[in-house]
Amino acid sequence: MKLTNLLVAIAATAILTACQPATDGGEPAAATAAPTEGGVIEAIATRTSVRAYTADTVAAADVEILLRAAMAAPTARDSRPWAFVVVTDTAIISQLDRQGFKAPVAIVACGNTEKMLEDEGRDYWVQDVSAAVENLLVQANAMGLGAVWTGVYPIADRVKGVKEILNMPENLIPLAIVYAGKPAAEPKIKDKWDTANIYYNKF
Amino acid sequence: MKLTNLLVAIAATAILTACQPATDGGEPAAATAAPTEGGVIEAIATRTSVRAYTADTVAAADVEILLRAAMAAPTARDSRPWAFVVVTDTAIISQLDRQGFKAPVAIVACGNTEKMLEDEGRDYWVQDVSAAVENLLVQANAMGLGAVWTGVYPIADRVKGVKEILNMPENLIPLAIVYAGKPAAEPKIKDKWDTANIYYNKF
Repeated sequence: MKLTNLLVAIAATAILTACQPATDGGEPAAATAAPTEGGVIEAIATRTSVRAYTADTVAAADVEILLRAAMAAPTARDSRPWAFVVVTDTAIISQLDRQGFKAPVAIVACGNTEKMLEDEGRDYWVQDVSAAVENLLVQANAMGLGAVWTGVYPIADRVKGVKEILNMPENLIPLAIVYAGKPAAEPKIKDKWDTANIYYNKF
Repeated sequence: MKLTNLLVAIAATAILTACQPATDGGEPAAATAAPTEGGVIEAIATRTSVRAYTADTVAAADVEILLRAAMAAPTARDSRPWAFVVVTDTAIISQLDRQGFKAPVAIVACGNTEKMLEDEGRDYWVQDVSAAVENLLVQANAMGLGAVWTGVYPIADRVKGVKEILNMPENLIPLAIVYAGKPAAEPKIKDKWDTANIYYNKF
């Protein structure tokens, strides 16, 4: 993974150079010197979808770290409306896997209807579980793992298919499947930064 | 922010101790020794909703780093269906702010209907923008900023209200407002880890 580390360092340097705190009208600069910053923007900015893996398995302890990252996400009114199915059985993975990724592990991130808000905020579960999935992906990258987010919900036939394969109980709704493993090749990082997406104050 | 750093270190140590890679049936352990790992799990695990801020502004360069983190999120078929409105005008923030946070900056994360997928995958924009918001929040924490995700979409009257305040064009849909600033007090970190949310292989 040495080349990866080098790429990570180059990308992070580019980002951090581009983002040097300005002396902004005499305002005190925010605490950009926090010790964790470099590694975090690296892990976020170099995360990319990895769809091919070596034959290496992912250790259970590493899967646990990924799930810890996932469950640290914020949720609407602290509802934590989630569940995670860790699939390491290759026969089941091959049933789930519509694209031939052949990953050593798949993590199915679900909503849990029993924990969803019972008012107009019910659908916030989608955003909550999405935040959890993103945490998991960033953490996977930080650990040298490659992963890809594949969408399930709200496409009805995908939801139905995943539920059937896993014999999932009524109260769980699969939102996404993350496949993960050691990258088979150097991941290609996309630069998606685009100032055309940014607006200020009011239109 | 010294106490924060201490808390971060304690929490991260606890997590990393709990997650030491096991010798898992002779499998090679995943690359948990990657240089970025410690800082990343720290930033993810110690992120918490911060709703009170000092009077300090957030430098424009720091807002840019937050937006770079946001736009590094994955999106369905690379559609990047997002837009971000950075609000620093205190009069506008006070109109948006239903809970009296009085943050120095608000970032309104939106979907852009012109970039959404045009098939059954259209609603993936919600997950894409949610992933972007979570990247932003983790990066804010890494930089010593406090932030809170407040939900807008899909609650119709909130969407309408935000659109009116910002005079937002038809094609943008506000999904969430992130308020951010320097924390006024030490953030209290929640431990949301719960193995009851984890299942293996098949039900």
